[in-house]
Amino acid sequence: MLESIKEKYEQYLSGNHFAGKPEKLYDSMNYIMSIGGKRIRPILTLLGAKIAGGEMDKALPLAHAMEVFHNFTLVHDDIMDEAPTRRGKSTLHIKENTATAILTGDNMVIASFDIILQTELPNKIQILKTLTQTAKEVCEGQQMDMDFEKMTHVGLEQYIEMIRLKTAVLLGCCLKCGSLSADASLEISETLYDFGVNTGIAFQIMDDYLDCYGNPELTGKQLGGDILSAKKTALYNLAWDKADTEQRQNLSEWFNKTQTNEGERLQHTMQLFEELGIARSGKDLMELYFSKAKDLLEKSTITNYQPLLEMINFLRSREK
Amino acid sequence: MLESIKEKYEQYLSGNHFAGKPEKLYDSMNYIMSIGGKRIRPILTLLGAKIAGGEMDKALPLAHAMEVFHNFTLVHDDIMDEAPTRRGKSTLHIKENTATAILTGDNMVIASFDIILQTELPNKIQILKTLTQTAKEVCEGQQMDMDFEKMTHVGLEQYIEMIRLKTAVLLGCCLKCGSLSADASLEISETLYDFGVNTGIAFQIMDDYLDCYGNPELTGKQLGGDILSAKKTALYNLAWDKADTEQRQNLSEWFNKTQTNEGERLQHTMQLFEELGIARSGKDLMELYFSKAKDLLEKSTITNYQPLLEMINFLRSREK
Repeated sequence: MLESIKEKYEQYLSGNHFAGKPEKLYDSMNYIMSIGGKRIRPILTLLGAKIAGGEMDKALPLAHAMEVFHNFTLVHDDIMDEAPTRRGKSTLHIKENTATAILTGDNMVIASFDIILQTELPNKIQILKTLTQTAKEVCEGQQMDMDFEKMTHVGLEQYIEMIRLKTAVLLGCCLKCGSLSADASLEISETLYDFGVNTGIAFQIMDDYLDCYGNPELTGKQLGGDILSAKKTALYNLAWDKADTEQRQNLSEWFNKTQTNEGERLQHTMQLFEELGIARSGKDLMELYFSKAKDLLEKSTITNYQPLLEMINFLRSREK
Repeated sequence: MLESIKEKYEQYLSGNHFAGKPEKLYDSMNYIMSIGGKRIRPILTLLGAKIAGGEMDKALPLAHAMEVFHNFTLVHDDIMDEAPTRRGKSTLHIKENTATAILTGDNMVIASFDIILQTELPNKIQILKTLTQTAKEVCEGQQMDMDFEKMTHVGLEQYIEMIRLKTAVLLGCCLKCGSLSADASLEISETLYDFGVNTGIAFQIMDDYLDCYGNPELTGKQLGGDILSAKKTALYNLAWDKADTEQRQNLSEWFNKTQTNEGERLQHTMQLFEELGIARSGKDLMELYFSKAKDLLEKSTITNYQPLLEMINFLRSREK
């Protein structure tokens, strides 16, 4: 099911490349859109429309707008994080330059609003309001993430709040807006939103997990990259909470000693994670949010939510 | 008249600071909004509403959205241009850092759409469509401007097209959206748009003029800064068109010899400009666009356009 929806969106995308002048600007937009990804956001948008009783085909431009918006955040985040690659390809600021990457992102966020404005969907204003509220929260989450890098301690609760804003609300937004485009009731659209947010939090915790325990050949990322760049992920915060005074001191040191041998920092941290059973704790935390998401559906009036459970299973068992 | 409208907006602004968390993000938005400027865009928005028979007070949030949008472009342009100061204050990427400046701009463009969405103005969708179209053109103009830096020759026509996109369409957009917020007829809103675009082109040519012939103490900019940074402004393009083969060769050399003594490059170029009567040509070109703008009003059904003539006079006689 999900695979065929993804295919539907990919087809729409291939028929809707950006065009305009100067070419550098539009080529850059198409470049970042073309380097793939899981297309979770457009899939969720289309599922939102379907679950609310609408036709997925009518929601395709909206699904596209959501993917364009998401890719805008990727382009700008990659500049801020100084990331050289994304999905195995050069990031845009490396391929072109920072100025073009900033401008490409700008034109993409504008395009995402424009695509929605050009549709004839019902509840257009409400959809746009949901997107601006979400977009604002995504910016807040990104700023929190950057602020956290300079803090010695974050705390699990604050970390969850950051990933809720930076990652999870957009998943909720996609489902909600998809459903609004099919004239969903408030109860349905809000349930879908909350489902999306909880799923999004679980999704990010899975990301943190894969960074430490995934297969680098599949994830395309360096194993323990988050540890080496001293990111205070879910796993770090879980470790901090379980650690005794001495272990906390070690953890702090390994997360700040940016001068020390990388291999050593990674090895020590991974060993401590093992002592504390962090792989298990991380998976448990992820499952907690997935089951919160599932509960919301079961308690709602929605009955045709099978594809959303399929989405949970896809995200839970993913290896990249 | 214009002064009192500016005052009206400044008062609105001072009662509508951005607020939210993380504070760094919202403080940065307020910082850039507070460092002043001529507030031409909100003034034009309010004038658009007034000319169309509306109440300016009702259009204040819309006027604010336009100024927020404009300031978003300033924050990002300053990063791209590596500008250290704006209006005598540190640019945001210098005061904070590039990442925070990118994110602040992002949150501002989103806020500009959100502010409009939260109003109860008529023609909201049409206003938003006008803004997304304009925003897209502003990005295109900025990319053209950057592309021009790498070209040895641009040409006056292309240069005018670039400033139309980068600067002028937003002035047209402000007037048009202001008038739409007061339910203007198509004829009135389109006339105001075209007036704004022609005025905007003249405004930018005046900027180019002041860069060479203004008083640095008033403009706050280094005299001949455009020449030194090899910008192919209106004056440069006018000079190119009037120059003979030898003069063109000199011009090319002085605009590319970035290694040579700055004072010498400036002196030679200014001398050539004088030989060719470029100060006069620049002023003439500016007047051409101002008079195109004025003609549009005179040929329209609009009768209460006196404040727009006042705006032309203000822009024409400005010294900063």
